[in-house]
Amino acid sequence: MTATVGNPGSTTTEYKRSASRFTDRITADGREGRPVEAGRYRLVVSRACPWANRSLIVRRLLGLEDAISLAVTDPLQDERSWRFTLDPEGRDPVLGIAFLAEAYEAREPGYDGGVSVPAVVDVTGGEVVTNDYQRITLDLATEWTALHREGAPDLYPEPLREEIDTVMEDVYRNLNNGVYQAGFAKSQRAYERAYRNLFACWDRLSERLTDRRYLVGESITEADVRLFTTLVRFDAVYHGHFKCNRNKLSEDPVLWAYARDLFQTPGFGDTVDFDHIKRHYHQVHTDINPTQIVPLGPDLSAWLTPHHRAELGGRPFGEGTPPGPVPVDEEVPPRGRAVRD
Amino acid sequence: MTATVGNPGSTTTEYKRSASRFTDRITADGREGRPVEAGRYRLVVSRACPWANRSLIVRRLLGLEDAISLAVTDPLQDERSWRFTLDPEGRDPVLGIAFLAEAYEAREPGYDGGVSVPAVVDVTGGEVVTNDYQRITLDLATEWTALHREGAPDLYPEPLREEIDTVMEDVYRNLNNGVYQAGFAKSQRAYERAYRNLFACWDRLSERLTDRRYLVGESITEADVRLFTTLVRFDAVYHGHFKCNRNKLSEDPVLWAYARDLFQTPGFGDTVDFDHIKRHYHQVHTDINPTQIVPLGPDLSAWLTPHHRAELGGRPFGEGTPPGPVPVDEEVPPRGRAVRD
Repeated sequence: MTATVGNPGSTTTEYKRSASRFTDRITADGREGRPVEAGRYRLVVSRACPWANRSLIVRRLLGLEDAISLAVTDPLQDERSWRFTLDPEGRDPVLGIAFLAEAYEAREPGYDGGVSVPAVVDVTGGEVVTNDYQRITLDLATEWTALHREGAPDLYPEPLREEIDTVMEDVYRNLNNGVYQAGFAKSQRAYERAYRNLFACWDRLSERLTDRRYLVGESITEADVRLFTTLVRFDAVYHGHFKCNRNKLSEDPVLWAYARDLFQTPGFGDTVDFDHIKRHYHQVHTDINPTQIVPLGPDLSAWLTPHHRAELGGRPFGEGTPPGPVPVDEEVPPRGRAVRD
Repeated sequence: MTATVGNPGSTTTEYKRSASRFTDRITADGREGRPVEAGRYRLVVSRACPWANRSLIVRRLLGLEDAISLAVTDPLQDERSWRFTLDPEGRDPVLGIAFLAEAYEAREPGYDGGVSVPAVVDVTGGEVVTNDYQRITLDLATEWTALHREGAPDLYPEPLREEIDTVMEDVYRNLNNGVYQAGFAKSQRAYERAYRNLFACWDRLSERLTDRRYLVGESITEADVRLFTTLVRFDAVYHGHFKCNRNKLSEDPVLWAYARDLFQTPGFGDTVDFDHIKRHYHQVHTDINPTQIVPLGPDLSAWLTPHHRAELGGRPFGEGTPPGPVPVDEEVPPRGRAVRD
């Protein structure tokens, strides 16, 4: 998620997402200069951001918490973008910087492009290695295998990649990015196009998930991670703030049960901070919510209600097992959690 | 509904509704100078406005369409407020004016206060008689009886007035006006106070209506009219635009069925123009929706689904009968109606 909203340079009324600026890959064989290595890299996220949330979930599912450390930014950017104001003295304790932009500057002096999360920073030199949110999680799944926990699932299994990629492309275009195209549209026409594409995709997914527990195959894959991070934000921000209001997630029996199933699976819901999500969207996007008032609703306790999706079969972790508990220093504070009434 | 949003003169962060400026009463005995008289008065409304919607419904229920003519303004005000731009050449065909403000000026030369609907205008001199939305409907019910249709219900029966007034006061403070206090709040604190009061009232009403068909007594009263006009706008505008998002109306089984019951009763739903409602709120309040984009949702066809409230008993019109069909020249255009998928 970049700090800027909309696309100031564009002459159309459609929102266009900027391409990631840094796309170096960290690989098992180190062919691009940076090998997989425990303790060398730091993952910088905002818990508000759906793109960063993907990497939080995948890191948890694969048990990479000890191998890659975590920095969590303030959900509210200022004009210098993402800040470490949640840390003592406002600095990330490992990188020693106050703004994520400093790691971008360390990578490319004079850099004045967007500063986005998720970003992987090389602790050795303090520079950003990659902010390529579409690639980071796939590499965690396929290049970091030597450091995966015992029982880690295969989130991107070879035989299913073509199908996974097809589903993810639809989800990306119409949902992950579609909600932004609706919310940041500069014209009624651009908004309506995004809205219609979004709910057409929604209906395809709801149909697909009616009698199968996960999007592709029998187990959780990267495709589920990517759909989840948009769905979990839907009623809290996209439905109202982005005007994606044909229906709430909670009004679609299939997708709502699917999302609750994942939410209640270790590694998903325990990464979600609704407080960060709600404050970020409503307070940062002053061009669509100038009052910066954060809605009190919706009631989040329903995220914890039974979903009955296990009856569809499937094995969440395939041959593997669920991840253990969240490291204590990474727990989402109580005010960010869905709690029972 | 006045043209101005919020309360520019106020130093608090709470929204305060202006008092009605003109409060002359039209009575059976003409004691304030203007007697009830068929053909003498013109009711000016916006179909967007919940306060004006009350008078539209009551006029229909009582069969006063022939006695009091109707002028419908454009849902979008400009800087001169409510306009007759829907009429040929942009002028009300009876009053001959382009702006409702002209009728206010005719009443008080130099008037520079708010111009609100509903307004009752004396066709004889073209001046506003009253814009007292709290009183207009009660007088239609109690002073205009000589001109009521045969079978007209008693919307404000003497023996129930105390109870009706008590319920209406709660509904006014927390719902009718409460949604505006939430939506126009200038601080998080003022918003949260309004939201909590709103949903506390909501729960009281939902409880009250669980086993009784109408708010007071066995039949429709003014109290139902006033609750309905807020409920019918709830999911279309208040839930998202005003951040009243603990739940949608359609998520509350009791109030949703109650509102559908009324919507499907002649005189209620046939006065509602969802197109005017959605465009007015989203395009006029640029301080809370600067893009002026009008959401496409929610799906309105559910307003026409069975409500099963007749099983609770009650007699909608008491000893009376339902009103006849809407006069052809007062029909809501198709784009404003709830239609089946």
